Amino acid sequence: MRYAVIGTGAIGGFYGAKLQRAGHEVHFLLHRDYLHVQRHGLKIYSKDGDFSLPVVNAHGKSSTIPICDVVLIALKTTQNQLLKDLLPPWIVHHGAVVTLQNGLGVETQLAQWLGQDRAILGGLCFICSHKGAPGEIHHQDYGSLTIGAYGDHYTPQGVTPLLESLAAHWRLAGVETAITPDLGHARWKKLLWNVPFNGLSVVLSANTTEMMAHGPTRQLVRDLMEEVQQAAASQGVTLQNADLEQMLSSTATMAPYVTSMKRDYNRQMPLEIEAILGYPLALAGREGVVLPKMTMLAQLLHHLDHHNQQHCDNSPAVAPA
Amino acid sequence: MRYAVIGTGAIGGFYGAKLQRAGHEVHFLLHRDYLHVQRHGLKIYSKDGDFSLPVVNAHGKSSTIPICDVVLIALKTTQNQLLKDLLPPWIVHHGAVVTLQNGLGVETQLAQWLGQDRAILGGLCFICSHKGAPGEIHHQDYGSLTIGAYGDHYTPQGVTPLLESLAAHWRLAGVETAITPDLGHARWKKLLWNVPFNGLSVVLSANTTEMMAHGPTRQLVRDLMEEVQQAAASQGVTLQNADLEQMLSSTATMAPYVTSMKRDYNRQMPLEIEAILGYPLALAGREGVVLPKMTMLAQLLHHLDHHNQQHCDNSPAVAPA
Repeated sequence: MRYAVIGTGAIGGFYGAKLQRAGHEVHFLLHRDYLHVQRHGLKIYSKDGDFSLPVVNAHGKSSTIPICDVVLIALKTTQNQLLKDLLPPWIVHHGAVVTLQNGLGVETQLAQWLGQDRAILGGLCFICSHKGAPGEIHHQDYGSLTIGAYGDHYTPQGVTPLLESLAAHWRLAGVETAITPDLGHARWKKLLWNVPFNGLSVVLSANTTEMMAHGPTRQLVRDLMEEVQQAAASQGVTLQNADLEQMLSSTATMAPYVTSMKRDYNRQMPLEIEAILGYPLALAGREGVVLPKMTMLAQLLHHLDHHNQQHCDNSPAVAPA
Repeated sequence: MRYAVIGTGAIGGFYGAKLQRAGHEVHFLLHRDYLHVQRHGLKIYSKDGDFSLPVVNAHGKSSTIPICDVVLIALKTTQNQLLKDLLPPWIVHHGAVVTLQNGLGVETQLAQWLGQDRAILGGLCFICSHKGAPGEIHHQDYGSLTIGAYGDHYTPQGVTPLLESLAAHWRLAGVETAITPDLGHARWKKLLWNVPFNGLSVVLSANTTEMMAHGPTRQLVRDLMEEVQQAAASQGVTLQNADLEQMLSSTATMAPYVTSMKRDYNRQMPLEIEAILGYPLALAGREGVVLPKMTMLAQLLHHLDHHNQQHCDNSPAVAPA
């Protein structure tokens, strides 16, 4: 299989490197680190064992990437205003598209660009990794993927042959891969965790253990989860109370965790407010569902993001082709 | 007139010193600074002119304070669990009580202790002042008072002879003093400003100008003000939309201001969450009015206060008699 990786950061660099190591041809799109990676390749520091790829197919613009079977989109959603221009030109006719981004709505955008008949998949990453020096990626924990097929308005698509084929390849490459027959449900269920914990971690400057240690904060986490349930219900997606309870109790007992949004904030990177809060709020709002605490969380994050960004070089990790 | 000042800080020390300078007998209750003030008196650094009182009636416990005509309560509301024990024993029979504290509910508490028939007044301070070194108070800006008489459940009491007498004395002492015939309305109207700006200044680590500069934050300020309107309405108090608009526009144009709650936070002092948010929320809640954004603001502040306090010496400015 031939892969294109759009965005060679903590996610795209890690999974792309694993695929290349397993024998697949992988083309990596880079911006800042392009020259370095072209010369020196990629180095993965992983809790499962370090490895190097001294030679990789590095591209400074997507127009040089040859036609691939699969395009993995691994930009931060905060760069999605660039996405259309960053996709290789042949994408309009060729290749399955798998977006590994956070939150909700990217598949919908891709379907609008590419047409409903194209194979558009979503991948949920359960991984703790970050970019280090140029060409270096650090993988601390977890690492599994859950993939599902996108249909109009996240209508469940079941298990398709393409999903099974990709999952089989990725498992052979050492990536624990699950298939969901209902991508929308999986994405909303992930939001059940991401909305309270990513959001509040920035507002309260707290890790998961600190958020779960204090009564009023625990109640607020629960309140926000219940609003995510309401938002999901407005889209016909049922999130069980048992899922909510299980997430609360497992988060209370897991090792202290600094969320990805908090790590972005600490590095003065833009926050993924739109994908995690804005788009879900807009969907619910269209159905007349008012969610005051999620709205307030988005308002607070916009303020903090705005002031955090003022002192920051915002140049994206990849540039338009 | 003879005055007792319970809590000789930025508020009680300032107004008490002005009354003594004007010829009144004033008795100051102190804790940490008792010995210093007993020896060296008080020093006021004021934008209206500095002055010293080398000799004051300093008390380390309230049992030594002689019977007074007026008791001024100027503790932070966060110390109100101590208040009953800090009041002089003769209070059950003698003296008018004026509470200069923030927020809502202190007069109600005093009326429960002292009985409905006692003269209980509320004073709203529009002042920017803080405590400096022992015995030193810094008055930066403003300084006016609005006083009103308390009746059961903040029923409007009109303009009483006592209010007029106090206002006349205080004006002669150089304190700009207005009378409100409706203390409840005045307190709710002050909350219209205090809820959003005190609360968000801590959560967002922002001054008033920063809060008004950014669209989503301005909207959140407005949302919170609308919830305060709803809370007031649940108590039969009407806050006009024009008041809300006027506060928004005057705050947008005034010099950048660091709120009292933010200054308390920066000094790792306990936050006045209960008086400004908790009690108003409880009153509205009893009437079945749900206020999600005010609730969330209180939840966030509880978390931040809790973690801020963990590294702090919480000994109160005054100790029980």
